[in-house]
Amino acid sequence: MPKRAAFPDIYGGKKVLITGGLGFIGSNLAHRLVKHGAEVLIVDSLIPDYGGNLFNVESIKNQLTINIADIRDQHGMNYLVRNQDYIFNLAGQVSHIDSMNDPYTDLDINCRAQLSILEACRHNNPGVKIVYAGTRQQYGKPDYLPVDEKHLQHPTDVNGINKMAGEWYHILYNNVYNIRASSLRLTNTYGPRQLMKHDRQGFMSVFIRQILDGEKIRIFGDGKQIRDFNYIDDVVDAFLLIAGYSDCDGLIFNLGGDEPMRLIDLVKLMIEIAGQGEFECIPFPSAKKKIDIGDYYGDYQLIKTVMGWACRTGMREGLTRTFEYYKQNKEHYWTNAD
Amino acid sequence: MPKRAAFPDIYGGKKVLITGGLGFIGSNLAHRLVKHGAEVLIVDSLIPDYGGNLFNVESIKNQLTINIADIRDQHGMNYLVRNQDYIFNLAGQVSHIDSMNDPYTDLDINCRAQLSILEACRHNNPGVKIVYAGTRQQYGKPDYLPVDEKHLQHPTDVNGINKMAGEWYHILYNNVYNIRASSLRLTNTYGPRQLMKHDRQGFMSVFIRQILDGEKIRIFGDGKQIRDFNYIDDVVDAFLLIAGYSDCDGLIFNLGGDEPMRLIDLVKLMIEIAGQGEFECIPFPSAKKKIDIGDYYGDYQLIKTVMGWACRTGMREGLTRTFEYYKQNKEHYWTNAD
Repeated sequence: MPKRAAFPDIYGGKKVLITGGLGFIGSNLAHRLVKHGAEVLIVDSLIPDYGGNLFNVESIKNQLTINIADIRDQHGMNYLVRNQDYIFNLAGQVSHIDSMNDPYTDLDINCRAQLSILEACRHNNPGVKIVYAGTRQQYGKPDYLPVDEKHLQHPTDVNGINKMAGEWYHILYNNVYNIRASSLRLTNTYGPRQLMKHDRQGFMSVFIRQILDGEKIRIFGDGKQIRDFNYIDDVVDAFLLIAGYSDCDGLIFNLGGDEPMRLIDLVKLMIEIAGQGEFECIPFPSAKKKIDIGDYYGDYQLIKTVMGWACRTGMREGLTRTFEYYKQNKEHYWTNAD
Repeated sequence: MPKRAAFPDIYGGKKVLITGGLGFIGSNLAHRLVKHGAEVLIVDSLIPDYGGNLFNVESIKNQLTINIADIRDQHGMNYLVRNQDYIFNLAGQVSHIDSMNDPYTDLDINCRAQLSILEACRHNNPGVKIVYAGTRQQYGKPDYLPVDEKHLQHPTDVNGINKMAGEWYHILYNNVYNIRASSLRLTNTYGPRQLMKHDRQGFMSVFIRQILDGEKIRIFGDGKQIRDFNYIDDVVDAFLLIAGYSDCDGLIFNLGGDEPMRLIDLVKLMIEIAGQGEFECIPFPSAKKKIDIGDYYGDYQLIKTVMGWACRTGMREGLTRTFEYYKQNKEHYWTNAD
């Protein structure tokens, strides 16, 4: 195992709330925090299709508390945020396409509920440190590459707009009410415990599933769109670093990958690593084309400089571990009926 | 009367919906549009304290239609947007302080209702042209001056965040659904028909009222904060220009004033023009200090270059007309009990 970025070993005995804690990133954070001796409270609503999966924490279920609740439940959140030292605020609607088909639900979860969580902290736990999960989607189609935090935000879908507002509520409450808050703008994260059963939460999971099911991968367009990637363990590092350093209160950080690549090259690498699979390029479906952002890769110099974060897991290693995980655990993530 | 910026005389016989049409900017737009022969439909909810005032359109009430409705009423908006050629979308919660005290109402009006209006257009009137009223508050505390449209948005209050999201819904629906939409980011607008009776919608109205009531003006801080100003007729010009030019669909424009000045100098000029009044500087109230943005003035080169818009009304002339208006019509805007 490669050495992870050093972060302050401050989580032992600390109370940590993870919203969306049964999801992909939340559950991986929970595993790491449990290992560090934190007292972890997961809040997750298990909304079908949103990523929450009890199997994600099956092996540590006796070492943490799971509270099934929706972050839109203002009264519940008022209680649940109390006495927490840290909140990793990961609950959200993350599908770009769903946000276009049902903008109101996206608004309720990604804006209104974020205000509720922050109001709950303001009134019941103003000393908490909260880290918000932002997204590269806030930038929209890049004006330049790599995209740094000074890049204008001009999102191309409702989800990107609402995530932008949700992030700014956090920064505002940091600046005005002294709740300590930071945001981490994620790019494509991949690895164990991701939602795999449908196609509406990103292409990585779709490609992995298609390869393991022996289905032909369909790449939209010519496959030359460039993306960057982070292995989940590196993303967990970043969240733990940001929560632990008070110097970054009120700041926003990009993540970014060291090996941006064209989708077609990603697929070829995946097929090579998995030892199976085939692909074809097909025309963009029009609904997806309208909100596609072209090439994207992020500049992560700020988090590197301020906190020494780095990508520790190369694509080859990360993808190898990912395929191993889903080969062993496929039945907990999708069935042939999905 | 100075010559206004030329704009296409396209409004004769056209159906024009103004949300917030009984308010300050909306009612001034209505007066101009009626003069141009447009068929004006005003939608306004007359929420107490929000700026809607039937007196604003008293003199033209038989030349337009007034429909009292709340833009949060999705079913009502579905009907009201039909067959309109243009929508000037001015309805909103505009108080920065109110947005901090009640962020949910600000969210419902400035985000959710904006989505409703756009969804209504998408389904019932996709060919409409809609102009959104953005605000300098979206930029927050400036990184540089003058602030152009490329300036990062980092709002300092809930209102600024929600206005930012509301604007981006419009641009998104332009880009994805071909509803034609533009945004005009306003700075401090002043003139006849403004809400005057309370202090929560900007300092211009407060200063004017205090001078006419013979009360001492209280300037927060040392009065050296710089602001820029637009007389209402110039703002009406800008809205009519933007709606009329299809080349600006999907674009965002700043307004800005030609005579940025320190608040203390503004107050001195007002006192000189009104021929009465006095002032003092007092410490910032803490709630206001936290969301104050320091100096601000906007760069309006884009709207000037693209559409030939210019400030036609100097501060001295604009303030003179403003004081005349409120001297004559004071009883319709505030009472000594306010």
